[in-house]
Amino acid sequence: MENPGYRSGSFDGLHHPSDDDDDDEMVDIAGATLDFSSTDDVPPLSTAGLVSLNSTGMNGNGPSKLVDPLEDLVPGVGTYEDFNTIDWVREKSKDRDRHREITNKSRQSTVALLHSLCDAFSGWLLMLLVGLMSGSALAGGIDIAAHWLSDLKGGVCLTDFWFNHEHCCWMSNETFQERDRCPEWQSWAELITGKSEGAFAYIMNYMMYIFWALLFSLLAVTLVRAFAPYACGSGIPEIKTILSGFIIRGYLGKWTLIIKTITLVLAVSSGLSLGKEGPLVHVACCCANILCHLFTKYRKNEAKRREVLSAAAAVGVSVAFGAPIGGVLFSLEEVSYYFPLKTLWRSFFAALVAAFTLRSINPFGNSRLVLFYVEFHAPWHLVELAPFVLLGIFGGLWGALFIRANIAWCRRRKSTRLGHYPVIEVLVVTAMTALLAFPNSYTRMSGAELISELFNDCSLLDSSQLCGYKQVNTGVGNSLADRPAGENLYTALWQLALALIFKMLITVITFGMKVPSGLFIPSMAVGAIAGRLLGVGMEQLAYYHHDWVIFKGWCSQGADCITPGLYAMVGAAACLGGVTRMTVSLVVIMFELTGGLEYIVPLMAATMTSKWVADAFGREGIYEAHIRLNGYPFLEPKEEFEHSSLAVDVMRPRRSDPALAVLTQDGMTVGEVESTHYSGFPVVVSQESQRLVGFVFRRDLLISIDNARKRQEGIVSTSQVFFSEHAPSQPPDAPPPLRLRGIMDLSPFTVTDHTPMDITVDIFRKLGLRQCLVTHNGRLLGIITKKDILKHMAQIANRDPDSILFN
Amino acid sequence: MENPGYRSGSFDGLHHPSDDDDDDEMVDIAGATLDFSSTDDVPPLSTAGLVSLNSTGMNGNGPSKLVDPLEDLVPGVGTYEDFNTIDWVREKSKDRDRHREITNKSRQSTVALLHSLCDAFSGWLLMLLVGLMSGSALAGGIDIAAHWLSDLKGGVCLTDFWFNHEHCCWMSNETFQERDRCPEWQSWAELITGKSEGAFAYIMNYMMYIFWALLFSLLAVTLVRAFAPYACGSGIPEIKTILSGFIIRGYLGKWTLIIKTITLVLAVSSGLSLGKEGPLVHVACCCANILCHLFTKYRKNEAKRREVLSAAAAVGVSVAFGAPIGGVLFSLEEVSYYFPLKTLWRSFFAALVAAFTLRSINPFGNSRLVLFYVEFHAPWHLVELAPFVLLGIFGGLWGALFIRANIAWCRRRKSTRLGHYPVIEVLVVTAMTALLAFPNSYTRMSGAELISELFNDCSLLDSSQLCGYKQVNTGVGNSLADRPAGENLYTALWQLALALIFKMLITVITFGMKVPSGLFIPSMAVGAIAGRLLGVGMEQLAYYHHDWVIFKGWCSQGADCITPGLYAMVGAAACLGGVTRMTVSLVVIMFELTGGLEYIVPLMAATMTSKWVADAFGREGIYEAHIRLNGYPFLEPKEEFEHSSLAVDVMRPRRSDPALAVLTQDGMTVGEVESTHYSGFPVVVSQESQRLVGFVFRRDLLISIDNARKRQEGIVSTSQVFFSEHAPSQPPDAPPPLRLRGIMDLSPFTVTDHTPMDITVDIFRKLGLRQCLVTHNGRLLGIITKKDILKHMAQIANRDPDSILFN
Repeated sequence: MENPGYRSGSFDGLHHPSDDDDDDEMVDIAGATLDFSSTDDVPPLSTAGLVSLNSTGMNGNGPSKLVDPLEDLVPGVGTYEDFNTIDWVREKSKDRDRHREITNKSRQSTVALLHSLCDAFSGWLLMLLVGLMSGSALAGGIDIAAHWLSDLKGGVCLTDFWFNHEHCCWMSNETFQERDRCPEWQSWAELITGKSEGAFAYIMNYMMYIFWALLFSLLAVTLVRAFAPYACGSGIPEIKTILSGFIIRGYLGKWTLIIKTITLVLAVSSGLSLGKEGPLVHVACCCANILCHLFTKYRKNEAKRREVLSAAAAVGVSVAFGAPIGGVLFSLEEVSYYFPLKTLWRSFFAALVAAFTLRSINPFGNSRLVLFYVEFHAPWHLVELAPFVLLGIFGGLWGALFIRANIAWCRRRKSTRLGHYPVIEVLVVTAMTALLAFPNSYTRMSGAELISELFNDCSLLDSSQLCGYKQVNTGVGNSLADRPAGENLYTALWQLALALIFKMLITVITFGMKVPSGLFIPSMAVGAIAGRLLGVGMEQLAYYHHDWVIFKGWCSQGADCITPGLYAMVGAAACLGGVTRMTVSLVVIMFELTGGLEYIVPLMAATMTSKWVADAFGREGIYEAHIRLNGYPFLEPKEEFEHSSLAVDVMRPRRSDPALAVLTQDGMTVGEVESTHYSGFPVVVSQESQRLVGFVFRRDLLISIDNARKRQEGIVSTSQVFFSEHAPSQPPDAPPPLRLRGIMDLSPFTVTDHTPMDITVDIFRKLGLRQCLVTHNGRLLGIITKKDILKHMAQIANRDPDSILFN
Repeated sequence: MENPGYRSGSFDGLHHPSDDDDDDEMVDIAGATLDFSSTDDVPPLSTAGLVSLNSTGMNGNGPSKLVDPLEDLVPGVGTYEDFNTIDWVREKSKDRDRHREITNKSRQSTVALLHSLCDAFSGWLLMLLVGLMSGSALAGGIDIAAHWLSDLKGGVCLTDFWFNHEHCCWMSNETFQERDRCPEWQSWAELITGKSEGAFAYIMNYMMYIFWALLFSLLAVTLVRAFAPYACGSGIPEIKTILSGFIIRGYLGKWTLIIKTITLVLAVSSGLSLGKEGPLVHVACCCANILCHLFTKYRKNEAKRREVLSAAAAVGVSVAFGAPIGGVLFSLEEVSYYFPLKTLWRSFFAALVAAFTLRSINPFGNSRLVLFYVEFHAPWHLVELAPFVLLGIFGGLWGALFIRANIAWCRRRKSTRLGHYPVIEVLVVTAMTALLAFPNSYTRMSGAELISELFNDCSLLDSSQLCGYKQVNTGVGNSLADRPAGENLYTALWQLALALIFKMLITVITFGMKVPSGLFIPSMAVGAIAGRLLGVGMEQLAYYHHDWVIFKGWCSQGADCITPGLYAMVGAAACLGGVTRMTVSLVVIMFELTGGLEYIVPLMAATMTSKWVADAFGREGIYEAHIRLNGYPFLEPKEEFEHSSLAVDVMRPRRSDPALAVLTQDGMTVGEVESTHYSGFPVVVSQESQRLVGFVFRRDLLISIDNARKRQEGIVSTSQVFFSEHAPSQPPDAPPPLRLRGIMDLSPFTVTDHTPMDITVDIFRKLGLRQCLVTHNGRLLGIITKKDILKHMAQIANRDPDSILFN
């Protein structure tokens, strides 16, 4: 049982509060053994400058405070250690103080006025830069590079080897029959052996495919392990945690950015069942974090920085799907914790800038904003809601199953020897993927291409296998009317069915490996395949049985009533919804892909069903499940605290424990204070009365005492420490006392012992607290930290409370 | 100076805490003298049922509490008076308790399980009903009726008098030249005198136009005054206040709904410069409030009800503009206070249902979802951002000016005799409007028609005056190329310029009259006219001077480079943005009108400029200005509290005042308690220690004592009242003591006296408090109420603190 008081996570041993930020210790986080000295490339921002205590507002004396030059300039006071939670209230208060100071100064001189104007517009400028950088350099670059590398697995362009397949054939001057069979593009077999047909050439291409896949994935995993362990995974669980106020130094640093960008391209090109959309959010957040250094306002304030990161998450989705509004709603719904209206507006701006930058780069070559441009010709009918809801159920079931299986697999990786060989794991999975994927054209193509093909509405002249309908000339009705399936289509359906099973299985073991990997595309692919299969099934049913009662009245012979592409789209939304539990943002992203309001209703029906079904098996989405797996201190804002416990049941000390460790406002010595163990202490009037005066962090205490020792004469271990307004009376021969009122938080949050925990949790969430004191009839009784709450919640849910690792 | 303690507004005299809810007193609110007995048609919901104290959670003893049958069933405890602010924390806690109870019961029996399922889905069902009702019965009905009545001012359909002009001519079998000059539709002059041309006929039509306008407005204002005074205005300021937690009984009642629906049609038809979009939000909220009665969960809980109302606001905008996503963002950005993610998702659902219901009714006759469907052919060029920003500046200036002028006029109405003759005012303004509007075809048509015409992109065959270009056959370039303006267009421009001045002036005095009136359409009309004028100007400039350097490279001769309709749209967005200060939602609504992502950038540039320019003159939008004008207790969530005062500067009692009125936890008698004056009291251990135990409302105290007198023997004025766990020792002959711990809030919020006010304001906003106690070193010092904060803010802004009327 933990002792009462406020401990900062399980890392007390490793990260002693007075440790330097750049210590070289190894910490196991997210299953990876990380070397802090190499990842901590971003200077610990909060210690980068002096935090004037006079302007933090939390010292509470306001403008009338007597300035104490010693206290005011202690560097490091008010900053945070790594793997700790920030205090939102303190950060926001600091920012308001800074703003107030600038506003006051701006009335005095023109220079100051200009400075204040710059300050006011720096947020917008930052957003512009984030949008431009994420949209162009990264998203565009990643798209182009991934396209080229993916095609390299199949062959090479003879005229210019840096052209991808499509581009190569566009540039071709020669005539050729099929669009993608130009003479300039040669498969590896053709290049090496000169033969493009036959079993030998096939095997040759097969081998080269596997070779490139292994090479890419080996490069990716090696780079990640060597330079930036934080670059692995999708990054969204960690970003959610960071946005909720946690500090992981280096997670959004420049090395992470560089390595993640490169390895993302490699991982996607290696043909693994992963997408680049989720990691793009991480990449955009890295950009934003690095750009924050340019502006003092954002560099020095953890809360303000998180506002920018929220906007960056929107930018990430905006460039991933070309859906700026969907991106903003994704940030609001899925990743952000504190999302004021100002941030909404700025995110929207940044998302738009990014989307337009991307469009001007035109990586998809279709001058469209969106990844999958879809245009459907036929409306849908109310009867079709039934299959759409079916797809929703499938999506929900698959989402729930996927989360369980993936978490079980990741837990296995953490707890068994499997986790010790990440490179081998990646290579084995890549080899398996390549081996199984090559023979099937639907798994050989990249996830995005597959989805694009499945969403496609067959036109009359479409040569793709999926549009292999028999031509019938009934003479009546629409030229796009439903037609009977032909040989080609049946083959395609078999292949799709195999692809579905393959994708479902391989994605479970792929997500969570030590390479950058997103879930959006694989989830959507699974759903799109299922949807397309159902769609074609419905279409054939309607064609052969248009006299059935369910088709009566809307689907006569020769009419174009079923659009299999729409089913694929609905299926994709359902599966993505089941896995991530996104709702509004998902529907809006899909709406932005099609541009037609009328397809919102099917999407909504499927997403809603999928969420309900998946929620029935477990309320957590994949990101929340990974957060919990890694023991991050994340207080889910969506879930209600349902239990009827009171603050007194959760607080420390428990009834059997020794009393709470407190400091008294006078009468303690420097030595006594230095020999304490907890991270923070309430300060009381006296041990007897237990009347609360304030709260002080051990880190700030030690920094201040250290500083005082250096700068003030006569501070020894027996010097008295006092937190009261006036120095206590002392014997004349005593050493001079040390006044530490300046570092004390004079407005600690308190709740009474009778406060129901649901209210307490609400307060923690809404105000972003990291601790709260508990009183009874005006006397201090105990303390509740965010970790205590999370442990309590884990206990209620019959989980191991010790799985919560950080504070 | 007010006395220390917690007073409930300035209405103490009128609304004594123990008064019945249905008192007949007259209260002046929003400038209207209202008769409560007639408007309070909706039963005061919160007193409708018994609120079991055992399930409120705020009594704090949790599940282990000994059940005290007397305390548990006191009706009315925990409810609110009219014109008071709710306590969000208490309401949400109540709902969680209710939910917990249902969940616990659901494990016991199948019936209870079904009940719990019903309860879980009741929110969705309610949303469906709100969407259906608002979309169909109201929005559709209002559209159709307003269309018909508006046309009635000009003439009548001979075949079927209930057809409007357009419908009448559609139904016509005869041939006629101009689309809207069918023989079936006869102007009044034609009908009465048989002549359709000439001065006499013109005057005849003019007179009839004025007659109908006066008749409609007279009817509207009379109905509003007689049956539902709350039906006047746009309703958005009041809804914002209600959503922030204020209670105005009857504001969303069934009479308000009926009367507002009818009078809205009349007011719009009378030709006054007002729109129906804002009031539709009020109408949708009334629907939602009435439908809430069907579900206990929403009927009995003020916080839950507000979630539904937030969604209803989204529905209102969704049906007004056919923009469901924009509607949801409008609710989030502009009107809502507490908008959890669950509400976001449900609002979206309701908004979609409403939009599709409206579409199936098809009131605009174009089977489009949107009010103004726009399709532009030409893209815009970067150079055009300059005129777009100019439009933004115009919009911002006009917005700021409009708000000032309108508020000055409304203040005048409140303070002078003008306010005593609302009927005459409405009639005079209607007469003026009709007199001036008839001669100009652009003011004669309704606002929505005008905007629609201005947004329109001229095709070659367009016969409208605005498309009166000279036909040139250059032989080169686009058939839609820029052409020189002809006679007709010059006439149109003159008329538009006059219409602009007229609309700008008349809207100032129209908004705020005692008829339902929205601002969206008039504001957009002003901006659209200005935009179209600028657009045509730019077009002619480009035509005649395409060799100028600004047109070089993108606007050669014979090209279609300038789209005046787009300018009109940007201007409309800018002006609406300047008046309401909407940002994201405005851009998204406009985006949903056009459906093209590429026009977002001009819209965004104009909206941003407009907001910045308008904010430079005053940070309040029109709705906030009206809220302040009416003295509602609204704590603006968007604005930061900038001043550096501390809690001790704001709290009551002030330094010179007598000490805070408190109750002690024992030792007081029933008589002493009953003779108190304030609305609420902190309960302390003893007068000496001032250690806080809890907080109790006078209303709850009086209700409980009343109840105890009726049900418990021997309660007299000298009976002791105690709030402690155990009864105090008493002399044996004393009357039995009364235990009131159950009605005491055992977890009152406290802050220390040193807490900066910015943090305190944040706490109030985020938690939705109505009061907060102030302590110093564990002793109770004072109290801060929402009203105190608002007064303090008014004082800082150099406004009259007494303008804040309510608590």
